[in-house]
Amino acid sequence: MTDPTDLSLPEAAEAIRTGTLSPVDYVSAFLDRIDRYDHRLNAFVSVDRDGALRDARAAEREIAAGGWRGPLHGVPIAIKDIFDVAGQRTSAHSKIRVDHVAERDAFVIARLRRAGAVLIGKTALHEFATGGPSFDLPWPPARNPWNPDCHPGGSSSGSGVAVAAGFSPVALGTDTSGSIRHPATVCGVAGLKPTYGVVGRSGVFPLSFSLDHVGPLARTAADCAVLLEAIVAADPDDPAAVPHPAPDFRSRISQGVKGLRLGVIEAFTAAANAEIRDGFEAACRQLEALGAELVPLRLSPLDTYAGCGRLILQAEGFAVHEPWLRSRIADYGMRGRTRLLPGAFLSAADYIRAQQMRTLLAREFAAAMAGVDAALCVSSLELPCAIADEAEVDRTYDRQARTPFNVTGTPAVSVPMGFSQSGLPMGLQVLGKAFDEATMLRVAHAYETATGFHRRRPDLDPARP
Amino acid sequence: MTDPTDLSLPEAAEAIRTGTLSPVDYVSAFLDRIDRYDHRLNAFVSVDRDGALRDARAAEREIAAGGWRGPLHGVPIAIKDIFDVAGQRTSAHSKIRVDHVAERDAFVIARLRRAGAVLIGKTALHEFATGGPSFDLPWPPARNPWNPDCHPGGSSSGSGVAVAAGFSPVALGTDTSGSIRHPATVCGVAGLKPTYGVVGRSGVFPLSFSLDHVGPLARTAADCAVLLEAIVAADPDDPAAVPHPAPDFRSRISQGVKGLRLGVIEAFTAAANAEIRDGFEAACRQLEALGAELVPLRLSPLDTYAGCGRLILQAEGFAVHEPWLRSRIADYGMRGRTRLLPGAFLSAADYIRAQQMRTLLAREFAAAMAGVDAALCVSSLELPCAIADEAEVDRTYDRQARTPFNVTGTPAVSVPMGFSQSGLPMGLQVLGKAFDEATMLRVAHAYETATGFHRRRPDLDPARP
Repeated sequence: MTDPTDLSLPEAAEAIRTGTLSPVDYVSAFLDRIDRYDHRLNAFVSVDRDGALRDARAAEREIAAGGWRGPLHGVPIAIKDIFDVAGQRTSAHSKIRVDHVAERDAFVIARLRRAGAVLIGKTALHEFATGGPSFDLPWPPARNPWNPDCHPGGSSSGSGVAVAAGFSPVALGTDTSGSIRHPATVCGVAGLKPTYGVVGRSGVFPLSFSLDHVGPLARTAADCAVLLEAIVAADPDDPAAVPHPAPDFRSRISQGVKGLRLGVIEAFTAAANAEIRDGFEAACRQLEALGAELVPLRLSPLDTYAGCGRLILQAEGFAVHEPWLRSRIADYGMRGRTRLLPGAFLSAADYIRAQQMRTLLAREFAAAMAGVDAALCVSSLELPCAIADEAEVDRTYDRQARTPFNVTGTPAVSVPMGFSQSGLPMGLQVLGKAFDEATMLRVAHAYETATGFHRRRPDLDPARP
Repeated sequence: MTDPTDLSLPEAAEAIRTGTLSPVDYVSAFLDRIDRYDHRLNAFVSVDRDGALRDARAAEREIAAGGWRGPLHGVPIAIKDIFDVAGQRTSAHSKIRVDHVAERDAFVIARLRRAGAVLIGKTALHEFATGGPSFDLPWPPARNPWNPDCHPGGSSSGSGVAVAAGFSPVALGTDTSGSIRHPATVCGVAGLKPTYGVVGRSGVFPLSFSLDHVGPLARTAADCAVLLEAIVAADPDDPAAVPHPAPDFRSRISQGVKGLRLGVIEAFTAAANAEIRDGFEAACRQLEALGAELVPLRLSPLDTYAGCGRLILQAEGFAVHEPWLRSRIADYGMRGRTRLLPGAFLSAADYIRAQQMRTLLAREFAAAMAGVDAALCVSSLELPCAIADEAEVDRTYDRQARTPFNVTGTPAVSVPMGFSQSGLPMGLQVLGKAFDEATMLRVAHAYETATGFHRRRPDLDPARP
């Protein structure tokens, strides 16, 4: 029999539904891989082996009794350790929260439980979802499964690593300026940030309320779509919640791109390194070969979007952390502190002007998108650097084209775009119009299916010659 | 024949449509009153006599030729001098803008011209729509027509005075923390702030973009409804513009209040002075007598709403004025300066927390309003003080219950609620749900019709014994 950790999510769901795959065996297969490999990758802050097996057994009994709940029933999911799970610690990967135990499930966690998903563990992140890979926190940083010396992306590092390493078929992350798509890109998996407001955030530790998004990481865009359908729902406790007008992300995903007009955002791609630019060029040719029409999409420079997002993030992040920054500064890691403190120096007027700029940028983007069905740009502008090279981590931190879509609040997905000569994954971003995740996913799925990059897996056995 | 300045707006419109009232005579009657009385009231910063007569003649010709455009055709309107009118100065009542001539009409001005309205002049305000009545500006402050020694309300002072004194049947104002409803209340006319975003603001000098509203002042709520229908429209150049789902404010206005549930906001009324509280009590009894059911509406304290709105206004106002406050501080009046400068000391985190508080307050209000059709509270908590009494102006500046509805962005109208023993007008606020100006106006109209307070006019002839 195939290794069940190799199955796509729809394949696994079908096998579970029909009884050919036991949820207990399925979950156990992932737990075994975690046991074998995670001591080198640090994807998890905590693994809930007993709870996962208990829930898998319950799912097995329920399904056997004819109570299959849907495609997540009996399926393990790894949770960024910033989501509250009742009775478990929400560490946010910070010393500040070492003693915090959540009383209630976050809104999305409750949605996942209702769908029958099995919570397998809490994953590593950058402290409080900002900062960068740090060695001065209570837990080590996650490592890139394609090369453990490399940056695994962040802040949802462990969620990306867990999916790439086969520790979980799907994972949950948060994305404030690219924190889902970054680990997805550099770990060679798919990561999706939906439209702002459509996935509830109550019970998720905030970084920047107007930029924070919750979303899935999974092997493929199609797998992301399965998870997305389970978590898109109006959250009465999230003030920014908006109902999704058309939360069907799967029924049209296989319709291909023939006849679609796709905008190419040259302004967000030009600054990428040569290998990534070449990969993007090949992706564009691939989509043309599949029948899409590619047209240039003209936007303001990447720096304008990025600067706007950065100021808003610093201001809103400081508003959250101000009390602890005043009383417990030494309990933050160096990178978290360094990222959060500049917000202290921002005036209300600075923030207001950034939000006004943001409104103009969101209008610019919406106007440009009105002429196309979806758009394309790169994700990272650089390949992942060595995780221990502080200067390179600093230099490459902002070398990315993900923040603009937090500024606009529109959907974005990163999918594998092949590999560098050094064997590291690259990522293509597909962008959608607000509330049109469906068309975006259709493009991403067509590209994935044609290229098959998602099928290559990292080799986790270093003993091999 | 009746003095045409006494006609209601629908009466005047009908007379103009049928040719029994010439727009030229109608406009001239108002111009004559301005000539006779405005030297004591200072409602206008500038009167466009020639332009108004030219437009009145054009309207007369067009209507005679069968081209009646609707109920504003040939009707004069006074414009707060913060709206751009092409070729005219937009002074904002400030030395800073003495030399500023607008190149294009504001969005609402263009709407009014299309409706055939006749712009009669630009009205006095508090400097840049904030501050208070000032004697250190290039133009004197407007005076209350019920007693020229009294504060006429603000910041849309001249617009309230112009309507109350019979200088114009309708006027345009702006309302950031009550600036339409305040002069309406203390001048004894109706003033309406619609739902946030439904009246476009491009070409209006901003004070606080997230609190600024454009709206009408007129003799009655019904007259406000006529103007509102002309100006509610999606403004492509206002980033906050939202289309109004049901911009019909007149067809149900006469249906009465029988069977309506009206919430009484005791928290916003309790601190009013005794005469105003008594007036409010009488208004409630009147509406009950008309068949409404009155129920208590429980909200957070007035100070919570007011403090939230004040911080947002200071922060956003400073963001607008910062360059001039740095370079031309001496060109502001004392009160404008005093109101605008505190924003310099607000941090981004202060502002963010105020906006988060605002979200919670807006949700509280919406939840409370879900159980009623409309709501009631007082407008001012004090009678108008002497305009030259700086200490009283300071003391009473924030003694009002209008700001909460800028914070919530929901519609509010102030209508005459009788008179104090000293002969000064008092105001009742009727509050609506978002986008439900229609029900709010229905309540206001029923109350006005039953009480007739709007029919009493100030005596502008001081020679009388």
